[in-house]
Amino acid sequence: MASKTKKARMVQSDNALSDRQGFISNPHFASMESDVLYHLALDTKNFNLTEMFSDVKFVCMGGSPDRMKKLADRLVEELPYSMPTGHTLCNIAGGSDRYVLYKVGPVLTASHGMGVPSLSIILHELFKLLHHAQCEDVIFFRVGSSGGIGVPPGSVVVSESVLDGLLHPHMSLPVLGEIKTFPAYLNSDIVKDLVKFAHDDDGFKTYRGKTLCANDFYEGQGRLDGAFCEYTKDDKMDFLKRLSKEGVLNIEMEAICFAAMCLRANVKAAVVCATLVDRLQDDQLTPSHDTLVKWILRPETIVLRYIKSKLKEQN
Amino acid sequence: MASKTKKARMVQSDNALSDRQGFISNPHFASMESDVLYHLALDTKNFNLTEMFSDVKFVCMGGSPDRMKKLADRLVEELPYSMPTGHTLCNIAGGSDRYVLYKVGPVLTASHGMGVPSLSIILHELFKLLHHAQCEDVIFFRVGSSGGIGVPPGSVVVSESVLDGLLHPHMSLPVLGEIKTFPAYLNSDIVKDLVKFAHDDDGFKTYRGKTLCANDFYEGQGRLDGAFCEYTKDDKMDFLKRLSKEGVLNIEMEAICFAAMCLRANVKAAVVCATLVDRLQDDQLTPSHDTLVKWILRPETIVLRYIKSKLKEQN
Repeated sequence: MASKTKKARMVQSDNALSDRQGFISNPHFASMESDVLYHLALDTKNFNLTEMFSDVKFVCMGGSPDRMKKLADRLVEELPYSMPTGHTLCNIAGGSDRYVLYKVGPVLTASHGMGVPSLSIILHELFKLLHHAQCEDVIFFRVGSSGGIGVPPGSVVVSESVLDGLLHPHMSLPVLGEIKTFPAYLNSDIVKDLVKFAHDDDGFKTYRGKTLCANDFYEGQGRLDGAFCEYTKDDKMDFLKRLSKEGVLNIEMEAICFAAMCLRANVKAAVVCATLVDRLQDDQLTPSHDTLVKWILRPETIVLRYIKSKLKEQN
Repeated sequence: MASKTKKARMVQSDNALSDRQGFISNPHFASMESDVLYHLALDTKNFNLTEMFSDVKFVCMGGSPDRMKKLADRLVEELPYSMPTGHTLCNIAGGSDRYVLYKVGPVLTASHGMGVPSLSIILHELFKLLHHAQCEDVIFFRVGSSGGIGVPPGSVVVSESVLDGLLHPHMSLPVLGEIKTFPAYLNSDIVKDLVKFAHDDDGFKTYRGKTLCANDFYEGQGRLDGAFCEYTKDDKMDFLKRLSKEGVLNIEMEAICFAAMCLRANVKAAVVCATLVDRLQDDQLTPSHDTLVKWILRPETIVLRYIKSKLKEQN
């Protein structure tokens, strides 16, 4: 762990946690003496989270830990951020192997694994982290991969709205034995802004549309190539065409939770995904590794332009 | 990647995939020319999966990639398996960073990440792998961590049955826009056998009981310390006591999918978890890192005794 992190290993306060409710909405917090962010290997007793994180303004998340490390490296290259000679980035959550967390000036990058439950854990812990750090006005981005519907593979889709696997615009979660639902709207201003940062000469097209969030990669997304399949090709195509008619441009596995939890935390959020296959044509991801890697970087390109422009405005 | 893996990089067959249905249940397979196991970075065109995996008899899975690597190292130590001088284990799924996959003789270890969707992806791909490899009589184990209910932290729970977050004994998954449910029974013979491998002088107790599978670590498990909480401490305690009355001994995040998908694949499966906290007393995981690591190894100890005994029977 880097020296700055080690230096911050000091008790933040002997008192109870703050009862301020930024990022969180939990009346029990005020009576807690300390907080353990277990899956990030951070806590309020051994780390001064305010000193470590109070300048954070952007959080970029994606499923893959390697990709989030590479995005952090790219931020070092592209942001007006000078890293002292002899320094390198370290994984702030290196005490756990569940997620990675990097910080480049005001930007965090974090992996969230695959699927809603994995994302929900780190969002809870990142919101608690930003709360403890007394951050303000933080914007969250998910830069991910997806299957496209009727758009060329290698395109970028900025989600205008999100549906769950039953085509509902909310997240459902069993809480104390009963289903609770949480609305999952995304901020329309950021969608408009992000799409403006797509350039005609990008070599790929950036779309805005609806995103379906599935709970599985195979049956949950109507693929025919899973270990199990109980429907016909016609059933699959009928479903994908129904999605297409409703304006769904891509399918992935986290957006409904990302939208719903960011809304609850009162933070602006955007979901920007590359499409790695056109599901109206194919189920399997057959392009070469190099091609897929090139495509997967495209959402980051759009989001980085947005972040650079916002940082320019602030300076 | 190890030499054996490289050697196996040859076309398995130019014909369509086998229409044998071991491990899988998918009529579309017979018409597929090849198969990409995308999240394991394996496929049937470039790898001879039969040569690589046909001797597999046990699959041990857990959430954490580091832990699954360490379990593989432990298998090298404890199994009657001699690794040639100058060899070391490599991550067979190293071409992707989504999961890790190790092989020690007849045993695979694989990480599955956190939550049902993440587990479902790798189970689909492992079942397809075992199908392509023409394996037979493979037993699956999940060796995981959990929150206990009314058992001392550091205990081991062998799941007799599994409930989802609504206390249903089945897995629910939206497929083509509609909820499909899949029964999630576990094999009672393996439960009985596993419990027999607990020793009086283990220094921990091994229980058999029901397991609740939640879709979230915080609200989904009735914790009071998430970023959001809309219920009281009394609501939480009422829920946990209700679970306790129903015979639930622990809560984790994958068992319902593990049980349901193994049942569909017609493979025997067992879920063996350490309890890291007694949820009737606490929400946060406060023991030291060293203590938690020691506890997390305990389910592996029980499962390893079972595997060693089965291998002895076979020889």
